[in-house]
Amino acid sequence: MIKVAILGTGMVAAHLAVGLERIRLGEIEPYGVPFANYSFPYRPEDVKVVTTYDVDYSKLGKSLYSIAKQLIGQETHVPTSLRDIYVKEGVHLGSMQGMPVETKGLEERMTIFEAVEKLVEEWKRENVDVIVNIITTEYGQAFNDPSLLEAAILENNKERLTASHVYAYAATLYSERVKPVAFVNAIPTPLANDWAVVRIFENAGGIVLGDDGATGATPLTSDLLEHLAERNRRVKYVVQFNIGGNTDFLALSMPERNVMKEITKSGIVRDILGYEAPHFIKPTGYLEPLGDKKFIAMNLEYISFNGYVDELYIAGRINDSPALAGKLVDMIRVGKMAVENGYRGTVEEINGFFMKKPGPPNAVATAKIIAHVRLSKWLEKHGVKMLSTVEQQRMDKSRVRER
Amino acid sequence: MIKVAILGTGMVAAHLAVGLERIRLGEIEPYGVPFANYSFPYRPEDVKVVTTYDVDYSKLGKSLYSIAKQLIGQETHVPTSLRDIYVKEGVHLGSMQGMPVETKGLEERMTIFEAVEKLVEEWKRENVDVIVNIITTEYGQAFNDPSLLEAAILENNKERLTASHVYAYAATLYSERVKPVAFVNAIPTPLANDWAVVRIFENAGGIVLGDDGATGATPLTSDLLEHLAERNRRVKYVVQFNIGGNTDFLALSMPERNVMKEITKSGIVRDILGYEAPHFIKPTGYLEPLGDKKFIAMNLEYISFNGYVDELYIAGRINDSPALAGKLVDMIRVGKMAVENGYRGTVEEINGFFMKKPGPPNAVATAKIIAHVRLSKWLEKHGVKMLSTVEQQRMDKSRVRER
Amino acid sequence: MIKVAILGTGMVAAHLAVGLERIRLGEIEPYGVPFANYSFPYRPEDVKVVTTYDVDYSKLGKSLYSIAKQLIGQETHVPTSLRDIYVKEGVHLGSMQGMPVETKGLEERMTIFEAVEKLVEEWKRENVDVIVNIITTEYGQAFNDPSLLEAAILENNKERLTASHVYAYAATLYSERVKPVAFVNAIPTPLANDWAVVRIFENAGGIVLGDDGATGATPLTSDLLEHLAERNRRVKYVVQFNIGGNTDFLALSMPERNVMKEITKSGIVRDILGYEAPHFIKPTGYLEPLGDKKFIAMNLEYISFNGYVDELYIAGRINDSPALAGKLVDMIRVGKMAVENGYRGTVEEINGFFMKKPGPPNAVATAKIIAHVRLSKWLEKHGVKMLSTVEQQRMDKSRVRER
Amino acid sequence: MIKVAILGTGMVAAHLAVGLERIRLGEIEPYGVPFANYSFPYRPEDVKVVTTYDVDYSKLGKSLYSIAKQLIGQETHVPTSLRDIYVKEGVHLGSMQGMPVETKGLEERMTIFEAVEKLVEEWKRENVDVIVNIITTEYGQAFNDPSLLEAAILENNKERLTASHVYAYAATLYSERVKPVAFVNAIPTPLANDWAVVRIFENAGGIVLGDDGATGATPLTSDLLEHLAERNRRVKYVVQFNIGGNTDFLALSMPERNVMKEITKSGIVRDILGYEAPHFIKPTGYLEPLGDKKFIAMNLEYISFNGYVDELYIAGRINDSPALAGKLVDMIRVGKMAVENGYRGTVEEINGFFMKKPGPPNAVATAKIIAHVRLSKWLEKHGVKMLSTVEQQRMDKSRVRER
Repeated sequence: MIKVAILGTGMVAAHLAVGLERIRLGEIEPYGVPFANYSFPYRPEDVKVVTTYDVDYSKLGKSLYSIAKQLIGQETHVPTSLRDIYVKEGVHLGSMQGMPVETKGLEERMTIFEAVEKLVEEWKRENVDVIVNIITTEYGQAFNDPSLLEAAILENNKERLTASHVYAYAATLYSERVKPVAFVNAIPTPLANDWAVVRIFENAGGIVLGDDGATGATPLTSDLLEHLAERNRRVKYVVQFNIGGNTDFLALSMPERNVMKEITKSGIVRDILGYEAPHFIKPTGYLEPLGDKKFIAMNLEYISFNGYVDELYIAGRINDSPALAGKLVDMIRVGKMAVENGYRGTVEEINGFFMKKPGPPNAVATAKIIAHVRLSKWLEKHGVKMLSTVEQQRMDKSRVRER
Repeated sequence: MIKVAILGTGMVAAHLAVGLERIRLGEIEPYGVPFANYSFPYRPEDVKVVTTYDVDYSKLGKSLYSIAKQLIGQETHVPTSLRDIYVKEGVHLGSMQGMPVETKGLEERMTIFEAVEKLVEEWKRENVDVIVNIITTEYGQAFNDPSLLEAAILENNKERLTASHVYAYAATLYSERVKPVAFVNAIPTPLANDWAVVRIFENAGGIVLGDDGATGATPLTSDLLEHLAERNRRVKYVVQFNIGGNTDFLALSMPERNVMKEITKSGIVRDILGYEAPHFIKPTGYLEPLGDKKFIAMNLEYISFNGYVDELYIAGRINDSPALAGKLVDMIRVGKMAVENGYRGTVEEINGFFMKKPGPPNAVATAKIIAHVRLSKWLEKHGVKMLSTVEQQRMDKSRVRER
Repeated sequence: MIKVAILGTGMVAAHLAVGLERIRLGEIEPYGVPFANYSFPYRPEDVKVVTTYDVDYSKLGKSLYSIAKQLIGQETHVPTSLRDIYVKEGVHLGSMQGMPVETKGLEERMTIFEAVEKLVEEWKRENVDVIVNIITTEYGQAFNDPSLLEAAILENNKERLTASHVYAYAATLYSERVKPVAFVNAIPTPLANDWAVVRIFENAGGIVLGDDGATGATPLTSDLLEHLAERNRRVKYVVQFNIGGNTDFLALSMPERNVMKEITKSGIVRDILGYEAPHFIKPTGYLEPLGDKKFIAMNLEYISFNGYVDELYIAGRINDSPALAGKLVDMIRVGKMAVENGYRGTVEEINGFFMKKPGPPNAVATAKIIAHVRLSKWLEKHGVKMLSTVEQQRMDKSRVRER
Repeated sequence: MIKVAILGTGMVAAHLAVGLERIRLGEIEPYGVPFANYSFPYRPEDVKVVTTYDVDYSKLGKSLYSIAKQLIGQETHVPTSLRDIYVKEGVHLGSMQGMPVETKGLEERMTIFEAVEKLVEEWKRENVDVIVNIITTEYGQAFNDPSLLEAAILENNKERLTASHVYAYAATLYSERVKPVAFVNAIPTPLANDWAVVRIFENAGGIVLGDDGATGATPLTSDLLEHLAERNRRVKYVVQFNIGGNTDFLALSMPERNVMKEITKSGIVRDILGYEAPHFIKPTGYLEPLGDKKFIAMNLEYISFNGYVDELYIAGRINDSPALAGKLVDMIRVGKMAVENGYRGTVEEINGFFMKKPGPPNAVATAKIIAHVRLSKWLEKHGVKMLSTVEQQRMDKSRVRER
């Protein structure tokens, strides 16, 4: 069993917790979990959310069940097993400014260091293995020097710190005092891209994975670009629009938060293709009736053999939050694996495939197909490989039997 | 230099020959050549078409230059270096029946065995390394037993033999008498899927690669399916239409030929996804004004995490013949490599990635992403790997310098 | 109240009956009814299905409620008011040959003339105003001469007659004996395009509207073509594919039935654009998981001003049966209006807009935009015009009040 | 012959002038001219550009030929007959602020009233019939009171006046002194929506048509919405993106200019559908390699009969400037017709169909299909109707003969 703490109890958290319970109950298959058919030491059904945090006043103290019920309950079954998990109070440090939400954070009634101690204590009680950061996109900058980060914590410097930095710092204390932990940073705040953060994880014995989960706004675009790269078709230009009606699209309509996305997104075309192609790729708008199922549109032209130009048009309706939740399952499994294998600091092979802006800061930018090959080799080195069809069927059967 | 003989002098042949010359001239980059950025012993510009065959009466004796000029000369530059290559007479054995073309074949004025001897003699004169079969889709069946195939040749059995079988047989004689050759079968006639053919190549020392080049009607569909597989998204159904205005679409509007395509295509969804998803994937029609730039349309739904269903719509205009020509460049390069490394019969690792219906007959069906990993490993074993960006730039520069 | 008899109790019948009841109940607005916002003498809620026919043994004697429940009950509310309408036995005359259904028809136990008398008697009992023919697409040919049609009926000529001809003949007897009726032929069998049928309606005093409702396979294509025509953009070519999973797509996968569709469809491009543009427009396939929500894909290029070429790609998922059902509501309303205004035979102005192959046989082919203008003028002549926004709101309110 | 003066010598002007010459030369058909097949008193080939204006320093004094050659000469034939038309100096009044262009305007060396007099004199010399305003989108506001506008002119109030207002004022002087003129305002500056402007035209005897030609960013969207309206399908939401690489898209990336577009665009959904549907319709971005052939993407859902929801996805590559140029030909023809029939001020029936924000200010918002019917009736009242196919062919032949 991998025990998971979630930071930020929104739609992604709801899908992650609900999806995992439903897999356990045998209601659904682990679709959307990239490595579900690999011989991991932990199966998707071995991942369990044990505690969760938020700073939305209206969510605090409620059960994960009631929150999931409210957010996605009209569309999907919410298992009652989530009734025992209650939303605990986290820190915000301005991360919710401008959002239409009444906030409450630990830093309002104690020092940041006291808040950190409290978090460590709570995680210890739950024996947490992996911590997943999926709070709303916030504005933040790297510290670079570990002593500056530590000083900011000790000096209670609320201006300089972000919620993410505080949580990450708590994770390093936890790693030292309790056991090494994997901290998965699925949002743009630079953590795996901040030497300060990477170094304190190194020292503490845990790992930070990040930054910004490689899903969300551009999964389809990257899928296509990767395949064009694999066939050496030269992209002349790429246009990609997307619009949705969930909180994330609302948050991104605020310029300061959008900037954070721009930073992690700016490199995607270069990272996937291996060269700069003219592109327009942005979260384009917010339209409430679309809900979590965003609309994506894309157009590109590429040069094929003998100089001929082909053109593609792609459109889709894609459920935003489940896509990230599915990938998180494997960030959690591979993060736990890395910790058990003694990794410290961060792991470039993992970040390279799973993240939009892979750390550490000096990570070499590679195409995602190369990142996939690298990760496959890394997994193989640690005894994980793709199952044959026969082995998959055996696993499916055992899953059914277990139920 | 890799010296290539082409069987079937249509649009694909024109693009292959013209594209290679233009790369050599420095007019275009080797886009659409999948492994152009890998450290192959031969570069794309080292591949040279030296002789070509056809059975269309109006083409015989003409230069490859004049034929390419006629077929694609309004769209692209046709280098005059193709003036020295003349179309030689091949065999047809009914492979052109029903097509609006007046045919002429060696078998009309000599026995098949005499025709085979003539081909071997001609290839010897040109010192051919690789033979590429891209004649019009014909109807044909496997022999299974080498002695049956040999008997058919010796007994001049025109009913049972296809043009492809005769060419392949000639290639084995050539391998014995002159030097081991790679025979690339890019059309559906079962050669690499016929033990009879594979065994005579084994004995003779050459290799046959096949069957049916993995491009043409469904490149885009397979691209997408592969990526969904890589993320373990479960495909609910796939619809894919395509329509074009070239000879191939005309030929496929004849039921007997369409059957041949059906056979090699039927497995594509299973081979890529690893399971059967309901699908409708067919060459759908012929509309002359579309020319070689076919229209492709696709729709699919897949299950994402937590049971959510996403939907994709894809459309495109794709130049059919250049797409195959680009892939042929690498089938030629990797075929030559295999022969030089002493392979005999056929090479499953190569077929698995490049072909729609990979031989030998007992080849295990795998997803194309696994085939890509397998081929990468095979290449690595033989010293070929992806170039870093720096190495690529060095190669590009050397290419320019050479010019 | 307009009392309607339905021939063919499938999905379209279910949607028509259910949709009308739900409008009456105030559950839904009359969306998809083209002229809902015009000042017709009858509102959509004044149309009522009073009896229905079929030849599927398993449907006979069942209530329209239970059949609708089975066909569409999982998706939509089926009002219990349909419990009182029972499916009566009709005639088939081979119209169901090859379909996976056990049939039973009146002609098996009485002469055709006796069957006709029975139908007239039943319609008289229900005081029917309009008869809607939506049986499965069948193979049939025109009689041209009324005496030949009458002879076939009297001589019990089951080979020559189709089910549609028998129903139409019955409608003329009913028009003579009871009251003038409108017979709406929404399938391809030539009725309004058969002088024999038109003449006997003329003599009897009723009208036949037809043939083949202008919806189904190509609504989106025609929408687009009409607008290009209205802006004088010249279509270079049109490709349109569609695939579905309902009975109609299954039926059309049988060549003989497909021929009937081809005949009515062949003219659509010319009729809409006013000239022949190269096109490929066909029901393309059957894939069960798509159900009644077909997938449509389209590509076209057109010449804009100064010779520039634009290109469009369209895709959609469209519910097939509701689209036709909505149009039928207005064919019924306008048919009843025509009868009340003394029209006999057929009405070209109505057919021109509503039908794919508008009768009578000598009808001038016009673009659909011209047909719309013609029909608008015809409606205006009979006192029907578009309501202003204010008038619409008043109508909406009165509808609510009534409820 | 209709003699036309063009204000703003950019890509639209180039396409308008070149297209008209090419129609006259018999090189192309008048595709993209909406009413080309109607019996207008003037044929497209009777429209002639006689003079043109700009404020781009680098264009002044150049021939329309050399400018068209530079802007579109690589794609289309530019007839030498345009060599005699030279670009004259206009006024800018800040309309080019922020654009990467060096400007020069009459107001820099004379008073505005003197500039007006100069323009009138120049138009008189060319005997101008219609003036077309297609300068770059500028920021401007209505005067409402004619005396305020006149005062601004006389007082040389450069802050308050826009270039468009000055040109329009000059057109009224011309109408008084020389002959009634039609002033076609194809940009967003409120002229036909400014009572001040409409009244001075009324008094002077000419007409102003406007504002903002109904093409450009949303032609395809409106096409689709109109047809859904015609079939009473209820739109749930509409998303429409578009991106291009021409000057117009560059200009619209400046917020102040974008605001002007927003104002005229905001009403489009309501005006076409007759109700407010949730929508996101905006010029979305600028990507240079797309050039004048913009990429459009659209998604919408609508309610069909019985409450079923259909969904559409549309993509396209559309040449922006030719689309407007084609429509301008008919704004010119119908404007001339209106003047000849004694209209003064503005003509709501014309604006309603051709403009995004039809004037006068109190114009009733109607769906475009109703606007089309209204305009057709207006044309019919003045003796203009659609030609039959036979009549069209006769016209085509006479055109050929004439050549």
